[in-house]
Amino acid sequence: MTGPRLRLTREERRSQMLEVATDVFYERGYDQASLQEIATRMGLLKGSLYYYIDSKEDLLFDVIRTAHDELFDEVAGLAAGPGDAFERLERVIHGHVGWICAHLRWTRVFLHELRSLPVPRRQEVLASRHPYQTLLRTLILEAQRTGLARPDVHPPLAALTLLGALNWSYRWFTPNGESKPAAIAATIADLTLHGLRLPPQRA
Amino acid sequence: MTGPRLRLTREERRSQMLEVATDVFYERGYDQASLQEIATRMGLLKGSLYYYIDSKEDLLFDVIRTAHDELFDEVAGLAAGPGDAFERLERVIHGHVGWICAHLRWTRVFLHELRSLPVPRRQEVLASRHPYQTLLRTLILEAQRTGLARPDVHPPLAALTLLGALNWSYRWFTPNGESKPAAIAATIADLTLHGLRLPPQRA
Repeated sequence: MTGPRLRLTREERRSQMLEVATDVFYERGYDQASLQEIATRMGLLKGSLYYYIDSKEDLLFDVIRTAHDELFDEVAGLAAGPGDAFERLERVIHGHVGWICAHLRWTRVFLHELRSLPVPRRQEVLASRHPYQTLLRTLILEAQRTGLARPDVHPPLAALTLLGALNWSYRWFTPNGESKPAAIAATIADLTLHGLRLPPQRA
Repeated sequence: MTGPRLRLTREERRSQMLEVATDVFYERGYDQASLQEIATRMGLLKGSLYYYIDSKEDLLFDVIRTAHDELFDEVAGLAAGPGDAFERLERVIHGHVGWICAHLRWTRVFLHELRSLPVPRRQEVLASRHPYQTLLRTLILEAQRTGLARPDVHPPLAALTLLGALNWSYRWFTPNGESKPAAIAATIADLTLHGLRLPPQRA
């Protein structure tokens, strides 16, 4: 084991596989994608993929779960940071839009190919979305409890409204377009958080 | 031509074909859907479909265009109605959510299978989305011009934020679920319109 390291570690190879699979699922759609093409783009024989996964379905599941976990970890960190509920919601909005705009293909595969998973695995992914909605709902509830947010807004529906505004950016954002992620996030925060905020009480 | 009319008119048959095709595209995905299955569900021979369309791609294009046009017509009517810009935006929000919740399969096929169209037809559909965004943007601009809305909000991004909040409902709304379309629309209007509205000036 001397000399330059020419081989990727197992973990590096796995990351590469998920990246390449995301590209192929994005470009061809899951139905038309083949493990053969994924292996070829990685410079491997198809048989080598079975060291990491058992089937194409396994690979889609890994791509979708990894996308979800990465976004969730990033946003959960921001939600647990300092500041009042609105300051944290604003950082969550910026983090979410930033992640989506930096991982457009991953987001699209996640949102469009979930239905290609068989029902039990789809349910497993859908169940893992609940913690994310709970995170948003909890921040909105905290904003209400601390007297910062209007009490007449229904937190679960407000969380879904915010989630829709956030996730929609994957459909129209283009890296070279006019609108940058920070401006998109600022507008979403402006509209939804301003809409949620209780006007300051008059003296 | 006496006696009960047993045959559908051409127009009725065409509507039926679009409904059935939407179901099959929704259930199987475009790639796996077959004209044979669509014809069988309609009680027709496959060859009869060619009286209405030239190919499966034609049929997807018709489904997508029809969905878009119906939603646009409904919302354009509401946008042109009486009242100030905020009153009309609120009716647009209710109309849009109501249409989506009543046409979940159509919305899903529209949003997910657009990519199955070849580029020129996809561009044609995408171009037809501009009038819809323009409609929202125009109402937001009018609200700003008439002194009702905050002037510091960027109308194109605000329109896309609103569109995201509206369209997202297709992903989680279920007809028998707890949240009814009117409650969903009210929350979206509450957050986004309240966020857009300029606070009343103090005397």
